Amino acid sequence: MSTIAVSRRGQAMPPSPIRKLIPYADEAKRKGIKVYHLNIGQPDIETPPQFWQAVKDYSNKVLAYGNSQGMADYLARLSRYYKRIGLDINQDDIIVTTGGSEAIIFAMTIISDPGDEIIIFEPFYTNYNGFAIQAGVNLVPITTTAETGFHIPDDSEIEKAITPKTRGIMYCNPNNPTGTVFTESEIARLKNICLKHDLYLLADEVYREYIYEGKHISLMSFTDIADRAIMLDSISKRFSACGARIGNLVTKNKDLYKAALHMGQARLCAPTLEQIGASALYELTDEYYKTTMHEYQRRRDVVYDALQKIKGVVCLKPNGAFYVMAKLPIDDAEKFAKFMLTDFNYQGKTVMVAPGPGFYASPGLGADECRIAYVLKIDDLKEAMAILKMGIDAYNSR
Amino acid sequence: MSTIAVSRRGQAMPPSPIRKLIPYADEAKRKGIKVYHLNIGQPDIETPPQFWQAVKDYSNKVLAYGNSQGMADYLARLSRYYKRIGLDINQDDIIVTTGGSEAIIFAMTIISDPGDEIIIFEPFYTNYNGFAIQAGVNLVPITTTAETGFHIPDDSEIEKAITPKTRGIMYCNPNNPTGTVFTESEIARLKNICLKHDLYLLADEVYREYIYEGKHISLMSFTDIADRAIMLDSISKRFSACGARIGNLVTKNKDLYKAALHMGQARLCAPTLEQIGASALYELTDEYYKTTMHEYQRRRDVVYDALQKIKGVVCLKPNGAFYVMAKLPIDDAEKFAKFMLTDFNYQGKTVMVAPGPGFYASPGLGADECRIAYVLKIDDLKEAMAILKMGIDAYNSR
Repeated sequence: MSTIAVSRRGQAMPPSPIRKLIPYADEAKRKGIKVYHLNIGQPDIETPPQFWQAVKDYSNKVLAYGNSQGMADYLARLSRYYKRIGLDINQDDIIVTTGGSEAIIFAMTIISDPGDEIIIFEPFYTNYNGFAIQAGVNLVPITTTAETGFHIPDDSEIEKAITPKTRGIMYCNPNNPTGTVFTESEIARLKNICLKHDLYLLADEVYREYIYEGKHISLMSFTDIADRAIMLDSISKRFSACGARIGNLVTKNKDLYKAALHMGQARLCAPTLEQIGASALYELTDEYYKTTMHEYQRRRDVVYDALQKIKGVVCLKPNGAFYVMAKLPIDDAEKFAKFMLTDFNYQGKTVMVAPGPGFYASPGLGADECRIAYVLKIDDLKEAMAILKMGIDAYNSR
Repeated sequence: MSTIAVSRRGQAMPPSPIRKLIPYADEAKRKGIKVYHLNIGQPDIETPPQFWQAVKDYSNKVLAYGNSQGMADYLARLSRYYKRIGLDINQDDIIVTTGGSEAIIFAMTIISDPGDEIIIFEPFYTNYNGFAIQAGVNLVPITTTAETGFHIPDDSEIEKAITPKTRGIMYCNPNNPTGTVFTESEIARLKNICLKHDLYLLADEVYREYIYEGKHISLMSFTDIADRAIMLDSISKRFSACGARIGNLVTKNKDLYKAALHMGQARLCAPTLEQIGASALYELTDEYYKTTMHEYQRRRDVVYDALQKIKGVVCLKPNGAFYVMAKLPIDDAEKFAKFMLTDFNYQGKTVMVAPGPGFYASPGLGADECRIAYVLKIDDLKEAMAILKMGIDAYNSR
């Protein structure tokens, strides 16, 4: 009989709300039902062949540790990529991490001590919660709404959330889960608040290339905040290489860089072979980015149009990333998502969505919202959205 | 002018004492000096071709996320491997991690809250320090000495270190940096202390196969401590695949497993392609393990014999892993290690060692000790040890 308990933070670590329904999906599949996965940002787009070729061509006999800050060749290519898109980012401003995830954990750990606070706009990427608990940081949410396209509120609203424990403000642009693209003036406002209140500003920009209307404004283009800007990045979505776990952190603050390097040294290095592959991906030309962006744009249009045809849906057209956060005419998104897997199918097919509450820190919010990831081929998406519509009807008449 | 500081823990994050001399080594290499690296556990043994073949054969077009707990096929092979070596470890006792490093961070985070303590035997693997700072855990060192072969002290000595904040005891077997193989009775003593005082017992067993005298006793072979035993493992040293960053955590405690799984879900998964390669490695037969062990044994003998011929060296014969922690006739190991890179070479060659102090948490200890990793071919090792001897003489007559 055990008398030993897991730590408080171990107990607090939340299951991924995106992944916790997987057992129901597995059960549906065992029954022979086809499940369209709109719940997770795992695109069906092929990882460019350059990745696979670079891995196959790697001829070292020993799979050795790389440098803790990243392999030299990869750092050089990353820097070239940033300069090509107009950002003055040098090799020694970059720490290569194991996925964007590790970049976020590094950043949270380096700017905050346990009990400190980071302000964030909800709904937000649900795994920020797990990283914050791991880092002992309290996420302080500022709510944004479907009705206003999830744009950020007035300065006064943001400044109200600042306390002596606040260490930074974090945002994701374009945003996961809402698809919102933040404007230059929105980011400038955040920047000015951070300068005024001595806060770090963290920008997750992993969906940078997926902008369908407007323009992507990188945090790193504001030079007057260079000492407190932290950019988080990853190849996962850019190159449909989620399983590679290659991300990176960018900072011009040398103390911050040093602390990140030391964290990197403790865990030795990011995966070597996957960095070799990633390196080749940054040699892709504009054509790749354009083609991929247009494909997602077409998918966005399919999903958005289908949502508009469902009575009771609230959702402004998202301008970026590959997600929609939509208010659906349902009473409980958790129950609905489960219902779709356990109690519904149309001709042996169903749809998995990510329930809204997991994307909010404030209790009770998101109960009638779902995140839809448009990561499937157009034909699949069309069918999935038709099934979703039928599922909503069935759920409401059960 | 920046007014913003890095967090206290960010500032406290230590540079790797093994890696911090790299700039001096790079400078020596730029001058054309050959540097024998005895400072880092990066073997020159080839990663088995099965790894490379599996990676080349992988035919998926999308490099997708794997399961957060590890890919199903890899979990199955890991479980088979453990059963083959007599350990009753099932797939659902295992969480695949990004290197042994992540397994340690997960374990520390899940058993402790910030300010809690974990007891450890020094000298210890230096990166435990960085992980503990990241997790907000205080490592409480119990000193072991070269004169006693770095074996653990009496129970009373260990129990004195236990406070209300102690959450566990951690050891590495066979040990990095000392090469000590702990006996069954030593581990049983630790186990009984943990049962008596309600503590977790954490065993880093990544060098399990490298035992030259005696027998490896796994923590997981003690069934009465199943609720509080945590084993940390990795393919890095076992298969000379350090750059793969594939490790795993083993626990029979379901609450602990759940917390580790949730941490795993936040960061999504360990690298996919490297798991594919790792999976093939666990199909290697006993012949591979025997051959590799014998190679390291011969290297151990070369290094140990050479050390015995240096006057003033104190070091019992290490029985496992691929490290020796030796007291050398020098006043300051940090200065000596730097001297070897900046002020000494023999016929254009020199040696890099890891200074002792980085492996101790108690200030002042290890000043006359160095860790030597016997990770090079016999001929290289012989030459490196001869150069080390000459370097010590030169250092002492400078």
